[in-house]
Amino acid sequence: MARDAIKLAIIGGGSSYTPELVEGVLNRLDVLPVKQIHFVDIEAGFDKLEIIAALAKRMINKAEADIEVIADFDRRAAIEGADFVMTQFRVGGLAARASDEKIPLKYDVIGQETTGPGGFAKALRTIPVILDICRDIEELSPDAWMLNFTNPAGLVTEAVNKYTKVKSIGLCNVPVSMQMMIAEMMECQPKELQLEFAGLNHLVWVHRAWLKGQDITQQVLTKVGDGANFSMKNIWEEPWDPTFLNALGAIPCPYHRYFYQTDAMLAEEKQSAEQQGTRAEQVMQTEAELFKLYQQPQLDHKPQQLEERGGAYYSDASLNLVDAIYNNRNSLHVVNVTNNGAIHHLADDAVIECTAVIGSWGAKPLAVGRLSSKISGLLQQVKAYEQLAIEAAVHGSYDDALMALSNNPLVPDIGRAKSILDEILEHNAPYLPQFKLDLS
Amino acid sequence: MARDAIKLAIIGGGSSYTPELVEGVLNRLDVLPVKQIHFVDIEAGFDKLEIIAALAKRMINKAEADIEVIADFDRRAAIEGADFVMTQFRVGGLAARASDEKIPLKYDVIGQETTGPGGFAKALRTIPVILDICRDIEELSPDAWMLNFTNPAGLVTEAVNKYTKVKSIGLCNVPVSMQMMIAEMMECQPKELQLEFAGLNHLVWVHRAWLKGQDITQQVLTKVGDGANFSMKNIWEEPWDPTFLNALGAIPCPYHRYFYQTDAMLAEEKQSAEQQGTRAEQVMQTEAELFKLYQQPQLDHKPQQLEERGGAYYSDASLNLVDAIYNNRNSLHVVNVTNNGAIHHLADDAVIECTAVIGSWGAKPLAVGRLSSKISGLLQQVKAYEQLAIEAAVHGSYDDALMALSNNPLVPDIGRAKSILDEILEHNAPYLPQFKLDLS
Amino acid sequence: MARDAIKLAIIGGGSSYTPELVEGVLNRLDVLPVKQIHFVDIEAGFDKLEIIAALAKRMINKAEADIEVIADFDRRAAIEGADFVMTQFRVGGLAARASDEKIPLKYDVIGQETTGPGGFAKALRTIPVILDICRDIEELSPDAWMLNFTNPAGLVTEAVNKYTKVKSIGLCNVPVSMQMMIAEMMECQPKELQLEFAGLNHLVWVHRAWLKGQDITQQVLTKVGDGANFSMKNIWEEPWDPTFLNALGAIPCPYHRYFYQTDAMLAEEKQSAEQQGTRAEQVMQTEAELFKLYQQPQLDHKPQQLEERGGAYYSDASLNLVDAIYNNRNSLHVVNVTNNGAIHHLADDAVIECTAVIGSWGAKPLAVGRLSSKISGLLQQVKAYEQLAIEAAVHGSYDDALMALSNNPLVPDIGRAKSILDEILEHNAPYLPQFKLDLS
Amino acid sequence: MARDAIKLAIIGGGSSYTPELVEGVLNRLDVLPVKQIHFVDIEAGFDKLEIIAALAKRMINKAEADIEVIADFDRRAAIEGADFVMTQFRVGGLAARASDEKIPLKYDVIGQETTGPGGFAKALRTIPVILDICRDIEELSPDAWMLNFTNPAGLVTEAVNKYTKVKSIGLCNVPVSMQMMIAEMMECQPKELQLEFAGLNHLVWVHRAWLKGQDITQQVLTKVGDGANFSMKNIWEEPWDPTFLNALGAIPCPYHRYFYQTDAMLAEEKQSAEQQGTRAEQVMQTEAELFKLYQQPQLDHKPQQLEERGGAYYSDASLNLVDAIYNNRNSLHVVNVTNNGAIHHLADDAVIECTAVIGSWGAKPLAVGRLSSKISGLLQQVKAYEQLAIEAAVHGSYDDALMALSNNPLVPDIGRAKSILDEILEHNAPYLPQFKLDLS
Repeated sequence: MARDAIKLAIIGGGSSYTPELVEGVLNRLDVLPVKQIHFVDIEAGFDKLEIIAALAKRMINKAEADIEVIADFDRRAAIEGADFVMTQFRVGGLAARASDEKIPLKYDVIGQETTGPGGFAKALRTIPVILDICRDIEELSPDAWMLNFTNPAGLVTEAVNKYTKVKSIGLCNVPVSMQMMIAEMMECQPKELQLEFAGLNHLVWVHRAWLKGQDITQQVLTKVGDGANFSMKNIWEEPWDPTFLNALGAIPCPYHRYFYQTDAMLAEEKQSAEQQGTRAEQVMQTEAELFKLYQQPQLDHKPQQLEERGGAYYSDASLNLVDAIYNNRNSLHVVNVTNNGAIHHLADDAVIECTAVIGSWGAKPLAVGRLSSKISGLLQQVKAYEQLAIEAAVHGSYDDALMALSNNPLVPDIGRAKSILDEILEHNAPYLPQFKLDLS
Repeated sequence: MARDAIKLAIIGGGSSYTPELVEGVLNRLDVLPVKQIHFVDIEAGFDKLEIIAALAKRMINKAEADIEVIADFDRRAAIEGADFVMTQFRVGGLAARASDEKIPLKYDVIGQETTGPGGFAKALRTIPVILDICRDIEELSPDAWMLNFTNPAGLVTEAVNKYTKVKSIGLCNVPVSMQMMIAEMMECQPKELQLEFAGLNHLVWVHRAWLKGQDITQQVLTKVGDGANFSMKNIWEEPWDPTFLNALGAIPCPYHRYFYQTDAMLAEEKQSAEQQGTRAEQVMQTEAELFKLYQQPQLDHKPQQLEERGGAYYSDASLNLVDAIYNNRNSLHVVNVTNNGAIHHLADDAVIECTAVIGSWGAKPLAVGRLSSKISGLLQQVKAYEQLAIEAAVHGSYDDALMALSNNPLVPDIGRAKSILDEILEHNAPYLPQFKLDLS
Repeated sequence: MARDAIKLAIIGGGSSYTPELVEGVLNRLDVLPVKQIHFVDIEAGFDKLEIIAALAKRMINKAEADIEVIADFDRRAAIEGADFVMTQFRVGGLAARASDEKIPLKYDVIGQETTGPGGFAKALRTIPVILDICRDIEELSPDAWMLNFTNPAGLVTEAVNKYTKVKSIGLCNVPVSMQMMIAEMMECQPKELQLEFAGLNHLVWVHRAWLKGQDITQQVLTKVGDGANFSMKNIWEEPWDPTFLNALGAIPCPYHRYFYQTDAMLAEEKQSAEQQGTRAEQVMQTEAELFKLYQQPQLDHKPQQLEERGGAYYSDASLNLVDAIYNNRNSLHVVNVTNNGAIHHLADDAVIECTAVIGSWGAKPLAVGRLSSKISGLLQQVKAYEQLAIEAAVHGSYDDALMALSNNPLVPDIGRAKSILDEILEHNAPYLPQFKLDLS
Repeated sequence: MARDAIKLAIIGGGSSYTPELVEGVLNRLDVLPVKQIHFVDIEAGFDKLEIIAALAKRMINKAEADIEVIADFDRRAAIEGADFVMTQFRVGGLAARASDEKIPLKYDVIGQETTGPGGFAKALRTIPVILDICRDIEELSPDAWMLNFTNPAGLVTEAVNKYTKVKSIGLCNVPVSMQMMIAEMMECQPKELQLEFAGLNHLVWVHRAWLKGQDITQQVLTKVGDGANFSMKNIWEEPWDPTFLNALGAIPCPYHRYFYQTDAMLAEEKQSAEQQGTRAEQVMQTEAELFKLYQQPQLDHKPQQLEERGGAYYSDASLNLVDAIYNNRNSLHVVNVTNNGAIHHLADDAVIECTAVIGSWGAKPLAVGRLSSKISGLLQQVKAYEQLAIEAAVHGSYDDALMALSNNPLVPDIGRAKSILDEILEHNAPYLPQFKLDLS
């Protein structure tokens, strides 16, 4: 990147997370000469976008930074000339998320926004939009990097890499959170740890952990089994069985609970939905409060309350990526990238989540080779689901959609797969023009 | 095979299926010069062995064939000099099978003798015995072919191929039954069909079917969806959803019902167990009746009632294999053999079930290459389970056993995996000397 | 194939080999109801085509067979309605072959019509024509089988499989000749042998050989090392070093001499070219004599002299293929087909030469898995050359052409690769419209 | 590495390169607390070892560093307690190298100390010794890192990784030299470049190069084709043909000249050997002069003349590795490590040379995935040679040795392979106890 002035395009700029991103930019002005941030959103999000833009300007003013803020609905203008395009939108908003969480529960199946049928529905809605954005990038800013935060981040990044020429990296805050929590357990600095991450987004394991050259995998597993904090704010922290962790021999991510501890997670989800509404409904409440806060004219910094939402480290993770690319750091980050052989068991063109070196040449995954049979089966089954879901989302294929859900390990039966699929397609019809189905 | 006199060793000779095997031998005397059949069983099976041997002798006499029948407990004598060693034993007998079927049901998990936790328990009991037999073959008859019918046939054959030098082929009557039923649907001769079988034992698909050079896959799927007979006598024939079959695009085997139609199969199993007892309990009744029949001194042929038991075509499948090897037929059979690249998604040393050429050089699988994502995920997940189950069975590893069950797609949760495992280990303790566990 | 009347289209019908093909048809009338043979050639081959057609008619009359013979230049009419399209043409005729043999020799490089730079030049000329034929088949006779004899048969078949939808099998007489010669050495019937063929066309090894279930690989290697006949009539029979054969542990094909015994083969070629002219020039003489013979009005059978030409068993190999497909024999043949995993070291879409089952569903290769490092390096290097040669031939890419020759193990240096390439392109310019080069 | 005091063991400490290593240690005292260097050599190298040790002490004294120097023949004492074991010995000394260079030339084959038959002979002599050292490390210092500089470094590292449990990284100065020379061409700092290195030792390509995020591969190729300095001091700088470089599309290493420009390199070698003696003979002279210099009591720094020897950057490359491991830098280095899927075309357990992240967890290769066919053939062929050479070296197998040389692309014929092999085995007999051959 030869330019001295960085332009960021934020697609879905009206997100309640955006102040964190702005804070991240302001914290890195010495290494990242950001000169323009262009927030884009859809017209229905006008009010939120306005509030965010105003808060961003107040934050920038307070920092006495020289950054132009633009906020409008002109996606093509935002993309043109951008150095980094960050995508953090939610097609259908929290209402759609609420249905993603509710529909599966009706069939005694995990209802979650990124895994299982909920994540599948989100993929169907999101992939056509992201591919549309990519067409714009290909035309208007072919050298730009797209950093994708939109979930399901692995699926979305694979769709982008398979169907467009955009330079893209998918990003999630789970790995960095895991590193923070392991550092806390081991009472060391996060950067002292060496963690061999490899898997898929929200299905990533640490296969081996080192501290100062010593293998500490077993110690970490013991601590997690003993109840050390090892969860994300937005999912239920069902305790891990130490016997299982010991047998597994690798450190699971918090989202693995849905796959390994399905019974307990489902029971909690059903009880929680009954008592407090779905997670989406709870977030709607939090969001309303956040935006009320953001509107206060005297607020000129990221409010503390945002951190309680559950997206910890998103800003750091993403702006550290921007820094690594812009300043050619060759530093290690855990990201979603094309496999290229890094994990033996998956196709070269599959997108995986793993440790990668990031510099001005992009992201180069570290090869981990062959994983244990304890890991490979679930990994391959979920990747097969992902591939089918991508095909379904891109081509609007009912057959691929049915086979995707039938292959998802959280859906125990093809009868339930079909019922859930039909309900998802009907409920999300406005967002799924690629499906030309007569579901009557 | 240069010899003019074939010796068969039948391990588990007291099985109620044995008369079918004898009939098969007598039907092929023009091409297979069998001169000795040595039936072996354990001492607890003395009565049955006596009955079978006497019946076999009456059948041979009626056919005026020159075949010596030996029946005793001397496994080493049976193996020594044998050209073919056929294994069809059941460690723990039908009582063990009954527990394989019952234990999982207590946890709302499929209870079946070859798949799921039931098949897993059977593998734990069987693999140490089969490896012991193989040590004898390596020592006493290294050029003999072992034809293994003992379930779970895929797992058992992979254990043999990985841990011994015995020349071994695993055999199941499901593929030949599928071919017969498809021929019936298409109103053609079985040999006119070309069926691309590939998968694992009891998890095999016909990926494409041809009749006279025309692709008839879709026609077969439509007929199966319309209710054409496509099941085995020993499993419940839950109807297939035509929409699903169409989406799948490949012809599933009857046992796939456990994986795809889990809800219905589980419901039926529970109801049936309550009303009629488990399948094992029903078979005990059938067996008792069969042996009563076999005892009749005037009986000198395979009785019709045996066919109702569910092992149709076993005899044909196995003796056609003997014929193909002995007479170097290079004919096509669907068997369990080492992959060697035939299925792209599995390791070279995995045992698969697929179409293979059989001649005096053994079994050479036909390469099918890369399968659809609709197939590959389940296939890889079940193979990962199988690999872990083999390691657990060979090394008596609790960790591998727990991970095997946790990876079995029929076990939805690690909590249930652990409970079922502990109950299996406790219940089968007499048959599992390799596990040195203190389960108190 | 449901039809009772078979139509054969013979592209390059004016070949001197054609009488053998006609003989093969007449020998199989009981199993192959051929009703029409349409010979096609280019206008320059008018005289030869006439002679061949007349001889074919006399042979058919003598056999009192009911087969219509058509001979003209109308390729599309020949292809329309054909059940089998056989390709045996030679772009540029024997004059082009002579240059293929001569040019490399000028640079002390093997000059041979199918391997090395000569085979490369032939591929450049042939592939565009074969793809053009395939466009016609796709349009006019999409269910027809193309049986390709045109060399380099492996390269040509891979081009067809990658760039067209035609059902195609490549065929060579080397494997069947090897089987015949091994049978002669072992004093057995060819069909008693089991030979594990795998490699590429004109680079195929028998990795293991069995007779009546016994491994005879070492015996065959010893006999070949002792000087048993193991060559083709059209290449120099340089004796094999027994020490090398023993170290290799696999049975090489006669064409392997060019790769392993390069020095001796090159010396012989140079001497022979000087004394007798190139092989092409010798063949021109033989051909002239053959056609003189074919013209004799009383000749009504394949003359003995044809067999001396070097294409032994071509007719049997090809018509046995037709028989296997038409009559769904599921018999074993060594052919050129898409790898699909059969050989571990090559891509799924590479065309290999190996034992395959042939029936109405086409050709299914037998998986041989992982080969020894003694084999894999040369195999992979030659396949890389082939892939580059195909790309060069299809796209007219000078870069790919240069890299193809640079990667050919018979070309020891990029300087010589470039000189030979430039001379090939210049000399063959009339046949290489795909190359739009200014070589001045 | 928790220790505050680093011990280095230098096997082959009497090497003329050692002063550079000492200088490297002294330059990094702020980050590497080296407290002891134990130089070991064989008794025949007593004089050189003494001279080196004395010079090292003078250099350390001048730097006022607190480092103990030990120099003796006690390899086990050196290894015990070592943190890093560096191997830089030469079995048979320069006399053996001279024969490695001479023998092949007699057969018109490249004679070079690391590639072709010369490198093969060196591997046969070196591998048994290095495995012996590894047995000591396994016993005495199992946590130590072995950094291997001994050529052929790729082969030696693969032997270590396959046959021992020692943590090992192989190192070469070619990649770092390439980076330096490319930086010079592009007039930038070396660290500004991103170079995608992947291949084998002395057969490594830069597949793509970036400067500030821009792909500069083509620019570099043009500069190299225009004659920019791109060679090592110890090999002949035959100019590259721009047309070839353009077709190749990747940046070859200087040693690729032996494979691509064989004719010119061989001609130069023959002329040079005749006029000036072999490279080994020239180096003997240089060495004699260097040691004369080293003996001067007033010399207390690395003399300038050492750099002319051709091992530029060895010290930096190796001590930067020590720094990266000791201080957990996670920095990028080009090293020889186990593939683990990084290069699609090679086995997981093959050792490759590629960019890797180095930290206290060791070396993690960056996955480059599938390479062009322009690259893969030569790569796979040379790796097959390497695998056979390792087997020959470890097991003393004549067959593997013959097949190794027959598969080496620099040996054009099996006849010459055999003659060269027999001469190598005879000449090196004192160093090849593993070969128990009667060559009379």
